[in-house]
Amino acid sequence: MHRLIHFRLCPFSRSIRLALAEQKTEVKLEDEKPWDWRAEFLALNPSGELPVLCLAGEAPVCGTYAISECLADMAGPLAATASLALFPGDVGQRAEVRRLVDWFHGKLNREVTQPLLEEKIYSRFDASGSRKPNADVLRNARANLRYHLGYLDFLTHDRNWLAGPEMSFADLSVAAHLSCLDYLDEIAWDERLAARQWYARMKSRPSMRAILAERVPGAPLPPAHYPDPDF
Amino acid sequence: MHRLIHFRLCPFSRSIRLALAEQKTEVKLEDEKPWDWRAEFLALNPSGELPVLCLAGEAPVCGTYAISECLADMAGPLAATASLALFPGDVGQRAEVRRLVDWFHGKLNREVTQPLLEEKIYSRFDASGSRKPNADVLRNARANLRYHLGYLDFLTHDRNWLAGPEMSFADLSVAAHLSCLDYLDEIAWDERLAARQWYARMKSRPSMRAILAERVPGAPLPPAHYPDPDF
Repeated sequence: MHRLIHFRLCPFSRSIRLALAEQKTEVKLEDEKPWDWRAEFLALNPSGELPVLCLAGEAPVCGTYAISECLADMAGPLAATASLALFPGDVGQRAEVRRLVDWFHGKLNREVTQPLLEEKIYSRFDASGSRKPNADVLRNARANLRYHLGYLDFLTHDRNWLAGPEMSFADLSVAAHLSCLDYLDEIAWDERLAARQWYARMKSRPSMRAILAERVPGAPLPPAHYPDPDF
Repeated sequence: MHRLIHFRLCPFSRSIRLALAEQKTEVKLEDEKPWDWRAEFLALNPSGELPVLCLAGEAPVCGTYAISECLADMAGPLAATASLALFPGDVGQRAEVRRLVDWFHGKLNREVTQPLLEEKIYSRFDASGSRKPNADVLRNARANLRYHLGYLDFLTHDRNWLAGPEMSFADLSVAAHLSCLDYLDEIAWDERLAARQWYARMKSRPSMRAILAERVPGAPLPPAHYPDPDF
């Protein structure tokens, strides 16, 4: 049985779970707390980053970049039936998918998702005791989020899917971040109609539903609209 | 003619310059100052990140991730002669290349290269006037660098090339970061024999020599050993 080591509110883990589900590849999920720095986990991935994919009989594959490209490399043999192409299209279209993956897994994560997770969730589990969120960090991350949602709205205004005519790993990556941010009740959906329509379509996919049904032990509950595709 | 928009001390730009040179693809270099946020550059790449590759007659390709995978996608048609495979080997070996690219372009950059460049170089060109480097940031980045050099030494101890038996984009990416850090005279080479031997081999490649011969206007000169393959 394949295994995925993940954290429920980690956007990288969520994007890979979506990719695996869209590719109809079943995995056993194993929870890892990113703030724990467990020796056994660091032995598996010395960078300490999530997720890690352990395919039956293969060496572990570490991190979203290596895993997503590896799933694309082996889409044929691994997938049970007709499967999503994570990086579809010609060379130019594939470059656009990767530019957007980089934007949201890189820039959005650094400027928004990671600081909000650190302050609102990880801070509860600090080794030296629970601490209060830093108000300056929250304010900056929220200002950055408005800018990123504006860009997402711009992209979804003219395109069916984020990178072009087909769904790709860019859609899964952005849905992973938005679902974490929406769990934290950080998204003002009213202002962003095109982005909201796109996210509603993502939410209604079976691959998303399993994730949206989960709750994170020790974290506050998400807002009522969080799992609802008609929000 | 193909064009690459880059900054001379940007490790991402350097890794793509190395990939293009190893693939025997000639490009015209255009300097961009990352701290300038020029409107014309942001129109080309709204994320504001370097490098950007403009292949003749094609849409621009933005960022190291999209460019490196795009060069691998089109290695056949673009390359003039026998060309380096950026992600060589089977699925597992390619995943190891990407894990290491992620480690050094992601973790090393975040923990070491970017803060040292910010404090030692970008700070000289601050819009509000030149400012002094922050001593705490320098101290943290230097402590992190020792840990990363230890990991590099561990990798190069048992392997000819970083990710396995063949040179790959992982080697080019790490050489790009080390060359920037060495320009800033931040590397204590005496302690790291295996890493030093590997870097000496990288330095003697024609693709590296062009980069090592350049100087950065407005920045202090690099140490005397910087361009020397026998250092």
